[in-house]
Amino acid sequence: MATLCRPEVAVPENIVTMADTLRLAERLHAGKPQLKLALRLISSTGVQKRHIVQPLEQTLEHPGFEARNKIYEAEAKRRVPPVIKRALANAELSAEDIDAIIYVSCTGFTMPAMTAWLVNKMGFRHDTRQIPIAQLGCAAGAAAINRAHDFCVAHPGANVLIVACEFCSLCYQPPDDDVGSLLSDGLFGDAVGAVVVRGRGGSGIRLERNASYLIPDTEEWISYHVKETGFHFRLDKRVPGTMKPLAPVVRQLVERHGWNVRSLDFYIIHAGGPRILNDLCMYLDVPQESFRYSRATLTEYGNIASVVVLDSLGRLFADNKVRENGEGVIAGFGPGITAEMSVGSWRTKENQ
Amino acid sequence: MATLCRPEVAVPENIVTMADTLRLAERLHAGKPQLKLALRLISSTGVQKRHIVQPLEQTLEHPGFEARNKIYEAEAKRRVPPVIKRALANAELSAEDIDAIIYVSCTGFTMPAMTAWLVNKMGFRHDTRQIPIAQLGCAAGAAAINRAHDFCVAHPGANVLIVACEFCSLCYQPPDDDVGSLLSDGLFGDAVGAVVVRGRGGSGIRLERNASYLIPDTEEWISYHVKETGFHFRLDKRVPGTMKPLAPVVRQLVERHGWNVRSLDFYIIHAGGPRILNDLCMYLDVPQESFRYSRATLTEYGNIASVVVLDSLGRLFADNKVRENGEGVIAGFGPGITAEMSVGSWRTKENQ
Repeated sequence: MATLCRPEVAVPENIVTMADTLRLAERLHAGKPQLKLALRLISSTGVQKRHIVQPLEQTLEHPGFEARNKIYEAEAKRRVPPVIKRALANAELSAEDIDAIIYVSCTGFTMPAMTAWLVNKMGFRHDTRQIPIAQLGCAAGAAAINRAHDFCVAHPGANVLIVACEFCSLCYQPPDDDVGSLLSDGLFGDAVGAVVVRGRGGSGIRLERNASYLIPDTEEWISYHVKETGFHFRLDKRVPGTMKPLAPVVRQLVERHGWNVRSLDFYIIHAGGPRILNDLCMYLDVPQESFRYSRATLTEYGNIASVVVLDSLGRLFADNKVRENGEGVIAGFGPGITAEMSVGSWRTKENQ
Repeated sequence: MATLCRPEVAVPENIVTMADTLRLAERLHAGKPQLKLALRLISSTGVQKRHIVQPLEQTLEHPGFEARNKIYEAEAKRRVPPVIKRALANAELSAEDIDAIIYVSCTGFTMPAMTAWLVNKMGFRHDTRQIPIAQLGCAAGAAAINRAHDFCVAHPGANVLIVACEFCSLCYQPPDDDVGSLLSDGLFGDAVGAVVVRGRGGSGIRLERNASYLIPDTEEWISYHVKETGFHFRLDKRVPGTMKPLAPVVRQLVERHGWNVRSLDFYIIHAGGPRILNDLCMYLDVPQESFRYSRATLTEYGNIASVVVLDSLGRLFADNKVRENGEGVIAGFGPGITAEMSVGSWRTKENQ
């Protein structure tokens, strides 16, 4: 038994609106033939604003990979602990009740992982398992939920803390001006999130089954070029079309669990972009409204990578309209191209 | 039930002897005050030779982080598949029997993780779970065994492939000349390894219990400084002394399992350096001979990071002297400072 409790997400105080983004693209890339398409794509993301760790002008500078990675570390240390505290409180647990920490982040790299610092600074037990994952990108939030689920099954009664920390603005690369890069510059935002998966008790989503899927031969579609200047995000124009192969996989997981994908009570879907959400709705034959939490995340924060599923989940909890035992699906998509999916049911009662 | 089958390890064809290493240090760092101590430390590692992916002179050049990372990827693609094939054969499984791939490596960074390429190129199922871990350093081999164990418990009958790929020579940083760096330049080697953890059947070590431990406030002792030139390995002089706090933790795990740490049938210990092995022997009060497999790895290949435990395990299997049901421990140590440990028993019969 593993229950995904209410998550917590925080976004930084620096706001970039869509108007800012469009103005900026026009200023920085004036006269370039790809600008028109990029502006159209950015406009159609529906991202009204994003939140970033540094003021915009500072974000546009590239102080070097080393300096950026130091900013990543400092900002993570500043912004992650408060969301962890609130996530623990939501789960009615304290740090010492946690048996494993899964820390996912693809926008900064540290060794040791941030898990070591968290254990030392936040009162976690020193025998807490550390599971840092840096290479699953946007799919890592859902992957973390699945690995936490597995951990709770393997260690009955254990509790897992998931932390997702994404400062996408620290991967802004000024010279990259292909359409995919310009679109990404207008799509991604920064956020940190945390959530506890309780092995026993707790209210939220009882995790019941999980699965993963890699679309064959799409490794190059979402990738990092690793350079002296850090991680350069590469986005292929075929990515928005990936819901065609992934929708059947989501449907299959739900059906294997004996449920009907068209009539679930909740859908928490990675808001990679508007077409991801629109297409998946269409292929699964569910109303657009079903993905409202994911749409709200995209509109208000942009694509916040692995934090998207936690933020959309947070909105589901805040809305609090799911019936007891309501059935739902969580799906994250990211580089690979990989889908990480799970199904679970809504349980508000303690000690089910 | 999870059985750690016989692992496979391969080392590259370019050999660096201790004599080469000492000569090189004398040539590159002539006249520096720290040279004498560094030479003494290198001499006392007992590392007779190491194997590296490129010829020595090429290794000494730094073509840039981007170029190095490309070498990492190309060498991984060349060297990993053959060990995976042999590891699958050892487990009497084919690629399509594998349910999860845990890929550990801290000496190159790719996104997507190498798991995506492996699934596409080696016939793994497209629903294989991908668990890439880049931030546990030398502890990652043992961590992978523990997470594979957990996965098999969570998914009865599932099989997990572990891949460890470490090209430490690609993290050589010519300007770094502190004693820790000079010692590291003479200690680390390259290797790739693979092993299957079978959920049912199989011969090898039945994994029975695992644990993790972080030594309080030692995050800075083993770390990467991430710079434009890539990962700079930082080794604190206090690291060799870490067996004092870790030996009791290893003992405790073994005792919790009802066994006596002094009289186990096998010990597979991360060969971080000679003092790690000597001290742990001393603190656990076991004969030096008990760690012979780890010592052989260190002598013949150097510290091959997360691959050490797989190589030492391979030597245990090759030696084939453990009695049926023989009791043993596996322990990996790495940045954090983190220990990942497990206990298990030797089972040669199928379908136990």
